[in-house]
Amino acid sequence: MQKKEEPPPHKNLAWPTVQRLSEYLIILEQFAESGKDIISSSELASIYSNTPSQVRQDIFRLPSTGRVGQGYKIKELAEAIRETLGLDSVTKIVIVGCGRMGMTLAQHIPFNEHGMKLCGIFDNDPTIVGLEIEGIKVEEVAMLEKRVAENIVPMAVLCVPASAAQELTDRLVKSGVRGILNFTRQRLKVPSHVCVQHEQIICSFMQLAYKCKKT
Amino acid sequence: MQKKEEPPPHKNLAWPTVQRLSEYLIILEQFAESGKDIISSSELASIYSNTPSQVRQDIFRLPSTGRVGQGYKIKELAEAIRETLGLDSVTKIVIVGCGRMGMTLAQHIPFNEHGMKLCGIFDNDPTIVGLEIEGIKVEEVAMLEKRVAENIVPMAVLCVPASAAQELTDRLVKSGVRGILNFTRQRLKVPSHVCVQHEQIICSFMQLAYKCKKT
Repeated sequence: MQKKEEPPPHKNLAWPTVQRLSEYLIILEQFAESGKDIISSSELASIYSNTPSQVRQDIFRLPSTGRVGQGYKIKELAEAIRETLGLDSVTKIVIVGCGRMGMTLAQHIPFNEHGMKLCGIFDNDPTIVGLEIEGIKVEEVAMLEKRVAENIVPMAVLCVPASAAQELTDRLVKSGVRGILNFTRQRLKVPSHVCVQHEQIICSFMQLAYKCKKT
Repeated sequence: MQKKEEPPPHKNLAWPTVQRLSEYLIILEQFAESGKDIISSSELASIYSNTPSQVRQDIFRLPSTGRVGQGYKIKELAEAIRETLGLDSVTKIVIVGCGRMGMTLAQHIPFNEHGMKLCGIFDNDPTIVGLEIEGIKVEEVAMLEKRVAENIVPMAVLCVPASAAQELTDRLVKSGVRGILNFTRQRLKVPSHVCVQHEQIICSFMQLAYKCKKT
């Protein structure tokens, strides 16, 4: 893998760059699965629907690129993105709330394939507590603090009713969680060292409805 | 409701503005539910985590604002956002693929509350076809074209395996669909008059993992 003389800083990427890199990674993984070895910036741009110049700018932010001739070695480029996004070391995750959405995420998201490890699922419904999902036994929410602290879990997924979201957020933050993926419609108050990413799927529907009506 | 002399154009908003407006709407709806009548730009900004000036700029794009004294009438502001995003008339939607994710969306998303109407769910699994979900009978994928065309459905949600995504996209587009919310990891090729919104939840996990490691 070629190393640049002075690798550009890749630990403080702009948010849109991080978003694009994570989406490039999914594309590269699919190409790798299909047995392809090399991809050009034009191919990647065409699949992603942006420009080759944007793709090259984004790739230039990586510590290494797997560049070869007019393209990039797919596996090396994917590895460089994983390293840059910090997916080369495991991020532990808990899911709080195992209703329909929480359970779907637990079963649907390939955590292991992307440098993450689901290490706890919590609910307070006695018909759900004790179920085994993806090899993990759903535990009482009362166990949340203990498990998060003993496993040093940095990231939590919140799939509880909106009315319980802030209280559980406060408990997660006190236990040391630094990132929350929020699938509730409640906006969360967190200290400045904690990141919240809002996943309000209904908003995606509304945004697309706007696009559809505009065109 | 105050009307400005010359309402600013609101039919061609920048994408980040559309995103913020849809998220403001969720906040306003929660406030309205809790019985609050008036909200200030500072309050909205504080909950959304941006600046009052940004909130005011966004609201200025609306055809009417419900402005009163130092704040906005919540119901009128919400109505203006709905009107601007085109949620005041019904957008019909079909869900293609009723595995775990498709079924969760069908049951979890409050379509009716946000100007949308789910009017078809399709799958090719014989154990799923015929099930009734939210009052809608799951139909064979073979019925897709007929239903989309006869109901003039502009929007589809794709929750099928990646390997089937492009073929189904082509069929949806031929039947007249103009917007696709894509929950598969397959990037889709569509003609320029069709909008695709990628909902790769795994990417949100990766992006948050990056944020967590950076801080």
